[in-house]
Amino acid sequence: MTPHEPRDPDFAARVRASFERQLFMATLGARLVRVEPGEVDLELPVRTELTQQHGFLHAGALASVADSACGYAALSLMPAGAAVLSVEFKINLLAPAAGDRVLAKGRVIRAGKTVTVCWGEVVAFSETTETTETTGTTATTERLAATMVWAMMTVEGRGLAD
Amino acid sequence: MTPHEPRDPDFAARVRASFERQLFMATLGARLVRVEPGEVDLELPVRTELTQQHGFLHAGALASVADSACGYAALSLMPAGAAVLSVEFKINLLAPAAGDRVLAKGRVIRAGKTVTVCWGEVVAFSETTETTETTGTTATTERLAATMVWAMMTVEGRGLAD
Amino acid sequence: MTPHEPRDPDFAARVRASFERQLFMATLGARLVRVEPGEVDLELPVRTELTQQHGFLHAGALASVADSACGYAALSLMPAGAAVLSVEFKINLLAPAAGDRVLAKGRVIRAGKTVTVCWGEVVAFSETTETTETTGTTATTERLAATMVWAMMTVEGRGLAD
Amino acid sequence: MTPHEPRDPDFAARVRASFERQLFMATLGARLVRVEPGEVDLELPVRTELTQQHGFLHAGALASVADSACGYAALSLMPAGAAVLSVEFKINLLAPAAGDRVLAKGRVIRAGKTVTVCWGEVVAFSETTETTETTGTTATTERLAATMVWAMMTVEGRGLAD
Repeated sequence: MTPHEPRDPDFAARVRASFERQLFMATLGARLVRVEPGEVDLELPVRTELTQQHGFLHAGALASVADSACGYAALSLMPAGAAVLSVEFKINLLAPAAGDRVLAKGRVIRAGKTVTVCWGEVVAFSETTETTETTGTTATTERLAATMVWAMMTVEGRGLAD
Repeated sequence: MTPHEPRDPDFAARVRASFERQLFMATLGARLVRVEPGEVDLELPVRTELTQQHGFLHAGALASVADSACGYAALSLMPAGAAVLSVEFKINLLAPAAGDRVLAKGRVIRAGKTVTVCWGEVVAFSETTETTETTGTTATTERLAATMVWAMMTVEGRGLAD
Repeated sequence: MTPHEPRDPDFAARVRASFERQLFMATLGARLVRVEPGEVDLELPVRTELTQQHGFLHAGALASVADSACGYAALSLMPAGAAVLSVEFKINLLAPAAGDRVLAKGRVIRAGKTVTVCWGEVVAFSETTETTETTGTTATTERLAATMVWAMMTVEGRGLAD
Repeated sequence: MTPHEPRDPDFAARVRASFERQLFMATLGARLVRVEPGEVDLELPVRTELTQQHGFLHAGALASVADSACGYAALSLMPAGAAVLSVEFKINLLAPAAGDRVLAKGRVIRAGKTVTVCWGEVVAFSETTETTETTGTTATTERLAATMVWAMMTVEGRGLAD
């Protein structure tokens, strides 16, 4: 993927403001941790309230943060005043999202006039602490939990803005 | 789609018990409203806590109930003791999920030895009340908000059960 | 799916003329066997030249006829002068496409202002002949080989027409 | 993506032999140009016989080479004796495949016990020659025409081998 040029110099502030209005992200407990042109990362701590029947993060929660990460990666490249409408996404679940937190990364593959396509990844992190008599060491293992392909349409002049 | 024969006579109780353990469904506020062999419906009232930046139901919330509806449609046809692992799904967002509630329908297209494929639909319902001097009429309009194709693997003998 | 209203009264002739220009369909040996508003069927005889390593129809040949069936189902509802650009599709391969011929059915799920979404199915037919001393009976078995979800954008005023 | 370890030392010969048996690849005119563990490239010259109605490479032809590239990337990591069954793929069409030839690259994202997921890309190449009085220069432009996500199941003990 090649570096992207933002068309709105205030892209980062715009992404942050729109993210604040996504109340579902607050319900999940997701945080915006990186906003670059065409690249957005969200972090989600794993909590019991977000689990499926085996105690892992529900695939829907995982898809939700990947969807928002991709959507904001796309929005970061939009001209001021344009709105973003998700058209479709596909997620492949590669491993149970066990662990303490997940990082959802959205990356623009191609920003077209009408259609923008993104790639998403969700990485699960587990921290394990080994304690000896005097010290404790924390090791972090990470695992690719899911990949996403995501597409949207640019909408201008329909009374919507992001 | 042809009618399906359940292989576990207690499929409905099993689906209901597993749904209760999906704590994320309670967090969303989703309810199981129909369990038949190969067919499961979930209902989700639209609440402010579940919205995206334009005030519509977040695509991730919508995908979450469609994913669970498909997963339980698949589980309803599994032999006792087998577990269900979502492998992938794809959602097409056809219209904003405006309105008061959505109904997510999961239907088994094909139940194979290893792979089961389901079709999901999310319908959004809006109720509008017209009041005249003496009476009030409530009209419900419905709209297809999203479609899903969903696939899973049957897992036996890995220490998992649903 | 609800019945569709064509916006171009000459939709059938237009679909047939465009199909004739798809030289790849002739290379495969596919024939247009049904053109109704929002519904198009293609038939493809299975030949050795179209097989994969196990002697079944190659998944790509199967996807090709399903893609064209969906594309023409979409085109049948377009206003005169609009062009159709495939945006993406997803295929689930449910069973090997064994047999003598396949039928690819494209059906419009939703025809939007900009995005049209179709559902595709590929059914494989096998004919088996049982001969007794005096007579022969031919039995045809059919099997769902693949399903497709397919999306396109309407393009007007870019110098393209279908 | 991390480097992959082949489990069959003869993976390259096995991939080449299986590719030779895919008669559809010969019908298209595709050639195997790279076989590494988890990475396979196919090249397809664009010919009139493979086009759609606007004269571009048909999306189905493009999907066919991407499907085979992904399938052989997956096969390159399989133990001897295992067979590969495509389960599903999704393709996003980013730009018309104009030009002289396309290169389809298949890359393994994750090789699991049962499910293997690949990423595919199709790049279109155009060669333009500028001639001056005495010399000619050839410039090659390349464009990402499509991306694919592809999944398969490993099958052992069903009488199939690749």
